[in-house]
This record gives sequence, C-alpha cells and structure tokens, in this order.
Amino acid sequence: MNSLSVEHMLGIKYLIKDDINLIFKTADNFKKIINQPIKKVPSLRDVTIANLFFENSTRTKLSFELAEKRLSADVINFSSASSSVKKGETLLDTVNNILAMKVDIVVMRHPNPGASVFLSRNIKAKIINAGDGTHEHPTQALLDSYSIREKYGIVEGKKIVIIGDILHSRVALSNIYCLKKLGADVGVCGPSTLMPKYLDSLGVKHFSNLNSALNWCDVANVLRIQLERQDVQLFPSLREYSNVYGINKNVLDNLNKNITIMHPGPINRGVELTSDVADSEHSIILDQVENGVAIRMAVLYLLSLKK
Amino acid sequence: MNSLSVEHMLGIKYLIKDDINLIFKTADNFKKIINQPIKKVPSLRDVTIANLFFENSTRTKLSFELAEKRLSADVINFSSASSSVKKGETLLDTVNNILAMKVDIVVMRHPNPGASVFLSRNIKAKIINAGDGTHEHPTQALLDSYSIREKYGIVEGKKIVIIGDILHSRVALSNIYCLKKLGADVGVCGPSTLMPKYLDSLGVKHFSNLNSALNWCDVANVLRIQLERQDVQLFPSLREYSNVYGINKNVLDNLNKNITIMHPGPINRGVELTSDVADSEHSIILDQVENGVAIRMAVLYLLSLKK
Amino acid sequence: MNSLSVEHMLGIKYLIKDDINLIFKTADNFKKIINQPIKKVPSLRDVTIANLFFENSTRTKLSFELAEKRLSADVINFSSASSSVKKGETLLDTVNNILAMKVDIVVMRHPNPGASVFLSRNIKAKIINAGDGTHEHPTQALLDSYSIREKYGIVEGKKIVIIGDILHSRVALSNIYCLKKLGADVGVCGPSTLMPKYLDSLGVKHFSNLNSALNWCDVANVLRIQLERQDVQLFPSLREYSNVYGINKNVLDNLNKNITIMHPGPINRGVELTSDVADSEHSIILDQVENGVAIRMAVLYLLSLKK
Repeated sequence: MNSLSVEHMLGIKYLIKDDINLIFKTADNFKKIINQPIKKVPSLRDVTIANLFFENSTRTKLSFELAEKRLSADVINFSSASSSVKKGETLLDTVNNILAMKVDIVVMRHPNPGASVFLSRNIKAKIINAGDGTHEHPTQALLDSYSIREKYGIVEGKKIVIIGDILHSRVALSNIYCLKKLGADVGVCGPSTLMPKYLDSLGVKHFSNLNSALNWCDVANVLRIQLERQDVQLFPSLREYSNVYGINKNVLDNLNKNITIMHPGPINRGVELTSDVADSEHSIILDQVENGVAIRMAVLYLLSLKK
Repeated sequence: MNSLSVEHMLGIKYLIKDDINLIFKTADNFKKIINQPIKKVPSLRDVTIANLFFENSTRTKLSFELAEKRLSADVINFSSASSSVKKGETLLDTVNNILAMKVDIVVMRHPNPGASVFLSRNIKAKIINAGDGTHEHPTQALLDSYSIREKYGIVEGKKIVIIGDILHSRVALSNIYCLKKLGADVGVCGPSTLMPKYLDSLGVKHFSNLNSALNWCDVANVLRIQLERQDVQLFPSLREYSNVYGINKNVLDNLNKNITIMHPGPINRGVELTSDVADSEHSIILDQVENGVAIRMAVLYLLSLKK
Repeated sequence: MNSLSVEHMLGIKYLIKDDINLIFKTADNFKKIINQPIKKVPSLRDVTIANLFFENSTRTKLSFELAEKRLSADVINFSSASSSVKKGETLLDTVNNILAMKVDIVVMRHPNPGASVFLSRNIKAKIINAGDGTHEHPTQALLDSYSIREKYGIVEGKKIVIIGDILHSRVALSNIYCLKKLGADVGVCGPSTLMPKYLDSLGVKHFSNLNSALNWCDVANVLRIQLERQDVQLFPSLREYSNVYGINKNVLDNLNKNITIMHPGPINRGVELTSDVADSEHSIILDQVENGVAIRMAVLYLLSLKK
C-alpha cells in the first residue's frame, strides 16, 4: 500500500490499519532526516498550508509549523485572537475565504467536536484535524502509538493504560481508536465521574484503582488534567486527585516491573506526575515530542499525494 | 505605460486611469500564476516587507502575506497588540525604527485617516495603505473593480450601486473613486444617517429605496455593517436594517433581470445578505477574494520597480 | 582569534574583550551585506532558531527575526500570550519540548533575572539572552558600543554617561560591563533612588547633576523611563523627572562642546529627550537600530560555529 485510504486526516476512527502503518513507515524516513544536519526536504515546495487555530496551542502548533517548514511548504498562520471570527463570520465563510486565496491544506484546531468533518464535506482542500473539542486529535494518537512502537518494536499485544480525564479528552479517544486498530490491549483509569458512559462499546478495560492499572500495563499514558475543559468541578481538589491518581517514584518502585511513562504535555508537575517520574529513564515524554514532528511530516506528505 | 505614476499606494484618489489599467494587466498575469501548480515567482526575492497592522484584520492581512510570499519577499509582521505603540511611542518612531532595519515596503493598516499619507511624507520606503480609518482602502477597491471587469469584460458604462454604511466605509470611498475613474455609473443606497454630506461632490446617485437601486444597477456591492465603527447608534436595530436594506432571494426574484452580488467580507449572514444570495450563482464574493491576492501581487510588484 | 570563548550569549559579564572585538569585526561584514541590494546570505541555512519571548517586545524581536532571516535560518516564534506557560508548565518543560523538535538556537526574553543562565545549564542548545528582567541585555550593549566605535573609530578612552533609571535597567548594566571591558570611562546620572547600591563596585562615576554629567561626557546614552518595571513610584511625576533629567536643545546649547546622543528606544518624547534633540544631527539613535541587526547576525553566526 503506497497511498492513504482517506482524503483528509479527520480522526483515527476513519483510518484503516494499513493507513497507520504507512504513516509510521513514512515517519521513519522523516525522523532520519530531521536528525541529520540538513533537516529540510523540498517535498511540499509548491504547497500552501494554512494553520487555523481557533483555540490556543503551543506545542501542537509549533510541531505542525516545523513539520511544514521542513517540508518546504509555504505557511500562513491564523489564530482566533486576531480573526474575523470575532466579527461574527461563520466558520465556513472564514475557511472559504482562505481557500479562495489558493490554500492546499488546512490544519485546524477548533473548540467544536466535528468542526473538521463539517469542513471536509463543504470545501475543496485537504483538512487535518489538530484537535476538535472533546472529539479527536488524530496526530497526537499517531505519535503516541509510534513512540510505543519505537520503544517495543511493536504495538500489537502491548498493554496500555490511559490515566485521567477520559471523558473530556480528545487525546484519550483518538488513542483508544489507534491502539485498538493496531491490536493493543487498552485500559483506562480515573475517577468514575471522568469516564464516558459509552466506555463498554469502546472495548477497553476500566480500572478504578491506580495500582491495579499500573500492575496490569506495559505503558501508562498519563493525561493532563485540563481544568479549562470541565463545565463543573468533577473532583474535589487537585491535591486529592493527585493523592489518588498521581504517579510518583514510590508508586513505581512498588510495582514488580518497569513500565513506560507517557504524557501528551504540558505536564502539571506534582499533579499527574512528580518530576522524578517525568524525568526518569522510563519516561518517553520528550521522544513523543520529537516523534510528533516526524509523524506530522508524514501525514502532510501523504495527504499531499492524494489528488 | 509601463510604470505607475505614483511612488506609494495611498489611495485611489492619487491614481490616474492608466495606473489602474496597468495594475489590472499585471494582475492578469499573476492570476494565471497562482492558478498553476507552481504558485511562486522570484520577483521580490531581495525585498523586505513589513506588515504593520494597528487594527485587527484577517483577510486583508492574509491576502497581503500570501501575495508577498508568492513574490518570494522576506516578510515581517507587526501587530499593535504586541507593539511599542502601547508603550507610548509615536507612529513615526515606530516606523523609522523598522525602516532602520532596512525594510523596503511598508503595508500599513491604521485607525487614523491620513496615517499612510503622513508616513509617506516623512520616511523613505514605499507605503501601501491597507486601510486608514474611514478614509481609503485602495487595494480593496482595485480588486472590486477588477472583479467587475472580469465578469463583464469592461467597467466603463456599468452601473454599480454600493449599499450600506457609506459614511463610515473606506471601502465605499475607494470604490467610488475607482469606479468613476474607470467610467462606471455609481450609485449609493442606505439610510440617510449613513450617507456622507459631501455625496453630491462625489458625482454619485443616491437611492433611499433598495428596490429602485437594484432595478437600476448591474452590480450591487453590499457593504458589511460595521457596528464597531459607529460612534453612536445610527439605526434602531440590525433586524430593522435588514428588513429595509438586506437582500434576500425574494428581493432578487422580483427584479426583471439578473444582477451581480459583491461583498468585501466578512458577511453578516442574515443581515446584509441571506445565505441563498451570498452563495448563489450571481455572487462573485469568492472571486473577489481570489482576485485580491493577484491585485496585491501586482501593486507590490509595480511599486518595487519604482526607484 | 576566530572563535568566541563562550558557548552562549548570556551576558556581557561572561565575555572577554577579544569576544567583543570579534563580534564587532564580524558585524562590520554583515553591515556591508544588509546595505547591499541583496541582503541575504546562506550562512545559517540548516539552522532552526526559536524566538521565545515571555515579555512583549517589538524592536528586539523584529531585529532578531530580520537577522535570522537574512542568515537564511528557519525561524519559529513563540510568545507567552499564546503559550503553555499560561497552563502552568515550567520554563524547562516548555523549552525542552521545543528542543525535542530539534531547535539549534534559542533566543529568549524572560522577566526573571538569570532565566537564560538557568536554561544554559540544563539544555542542549545555544542560548541568546534577549533580556532577562533587570539583569542583562547583552546584544543591546554590543550594538551600543558598536555604534560608539562607528562614530569615533574607537571606544577606549571615550567618556560615556548613562542617564536615567540605572537600578532597574538591564541595558545600563550590560552597557557598563561592555564599555569597561573596552576601556571606556563610564558615568551614570539619575535620581539617587534609581541608582543601585553596588554602584561603587562597578567602577563608574556617579553624577547627580545632569549638567555636570553632560559637560564631562563625549556620549550620553539616555535610558527610557520604564514605569512598568518599578514596584513603587520612585519619583514624583514624569514632569518633574523631565525637568531635572530630561535633555532638550537648550541644555545641549549651553554646553561648550558637542556630545553624541543615544537612546535604546522606544523614546518617550518630551520626557527623556525632546524631539529637537532626538532628531538632531548629534543623535545616532537610528544608527543604533540599524547596527542592531548586524550585531545580532554576528552573534548568531559566531555561536553557530561553536560545536
């Protein structure tokens, strides 16, 4: 298979396993390139990409920008703070206007679940979903699975537990889809108030006890507590959350084995993870960041090949 | 004529008809280029351009940025939000500092009418006015007339009515100058409170009734209601404005002919235009946006030739 | 000497005199280049630079960006307004994440004194301090001394007085270090409440009277009054400050000689300097700005040579 089965990168839900493997193989090559002194390739030289971020973002936006520049694309940035959106324009009008300026690929973060899907049905351009509300964040899930594959050689059969606020997390949902498609065993762990009701239909195990979860898994992917996404306060305090679900060195030392620690960032140090865990040899958090650029280069490149 | 008669693009008021035609001919070539797979030309490779936006802007700023990048210029962006202007620096000091860094062309949007003219008299660089308060927005008027020329082959003799808040609109004033220089018949339509007192001296017809205006014209250029520019509230409510001056499909169907619909964006859907009008086959709104990049490439290129 | 003695540009304190002279000689070449029609060189073509500005900045940020672009580097910008810093991430995590994306040089402005030194001890990348709180701003001091050298051919033996808020000014401290290393005589002048207690240990003269200071010096480097940096109000009013320490044409005319006027910008016109002084033939304020780009190109280039 030399080509993706999809025209857009809207969510892991829409990918087949072969798509994911093709992205990983392509990212292998780009990872080699960005570790060489000359980090640029001319692959997207005549492609114009618009980064539309209707929510604040640091690392995802920087990661996409670097991926685009290393592919030699022309890049324009657009953030809601300075945008016509505040003047009451519809999303479709905003994007159609940008497309009339001959943009080939749109990378969009938007607070509304489904915004990317909606756009892909209405406009002529490749759409990459860089996070749509509580729905999906496919490139994050791809880089997470890619980092597990890099660590263990394979994802199939590995046991991964996702810890934290599963209900509000687009990272969790995209990770569950991706890991399941690759044949991993997936568990989730967190307060019952932060678990989605449709958990059973996703085919994942639920752990309410952190120790059981960690004893079961090979990899713990620890989510950030995003207080900004919670409509109501769903646990009493950060300190109580941290006491029950936070991972410190003591917790890890009491396991009978070593597990790999992941986190999509930014870390609330002392809440989800203590520093001696985040910075330990078992943490692959910075590998995730590095792999993010390679994965995004691969997705951009493969989508640009689809006519 | 191979060269503009002006050193700067401060307003349509300062152009002669030959300037406008030269810009259109040049834009024809650039429009071909941006519709090819390879959208870039090296024309401005050693030119540094500063985009100084002292007011928020999405589409004008993106359009200029794309035009500059497709001409291979080096681009630096400056917006008032992060600027020394807040530290009490004068406009002249801000711009002189930027020029001391060897900037060749300044594209400036500023809330004060005349800011571009003031600058052009005091500094050594080409100035392009990207909107100065309620005064002029010359590249918008050029792309509007260019889009009419594209639709009808000629602007001379065509009847264009501009609908909305003529008093506060730099788009209206620049359009009136441009259309008159090209030999079009121009009318305006809107509440009498939103008409300038010097209307007669501009040589334009005034319609207080929307239907009369639409029955007279070939093209309706519908302005955005910019509540942010009104010092006092000049009409009772958006709904009443919309009832009297908004264009919907019903209004158009009751005419005995087809007219072309234009809008500089962003559209307040349901206020100035309903969606079935904005998205109809008679609307050339997205052509305006596409032509904006070509027109700005032409203006930048022609000014860069002036020594 | 062909190479800097340092790996980072953290402060003038860490440089030896040969470093400063090497930077000046290198800047001479870059100044020639940016005054030619073709202002770009390919020196940093495969270098990625991150500009991290945790404080607002216009001129320093633009100056670095232009220096980077004229060296053909790949540039990514990061400002605190849109950053994860607001989400509670540590500085080290933010920067490590950016470095995991393979960034070679970090240019950082930060409100905390010592932030750049802290980073340089903890991460693998070249760090350039673009201002850390009230501590140092080395590239500003380098461009200031470079501008004095350009005016007089030599810095050694020249008498420079720095006027204003010495206590809170990173520009003053870096200038004192730089001028002393180059063999200049340095004086400071300003209200006693705005003088640091360790003034004697710096080996500079203190003038409380403006006229004595100006009669003594060859060059007056006039600081901006930065009300935003004062915890408490340290002088009664801007008008009183201006009456005692402001320089107007009358003050200069009463001297028996001509002195050179410098200011790091942005100028509060009518406070530190009147317009007839700021814009006079004795002012080299805009030369400072122009030299800033050349000095920053030199620093970036020389650091990139260190392996």
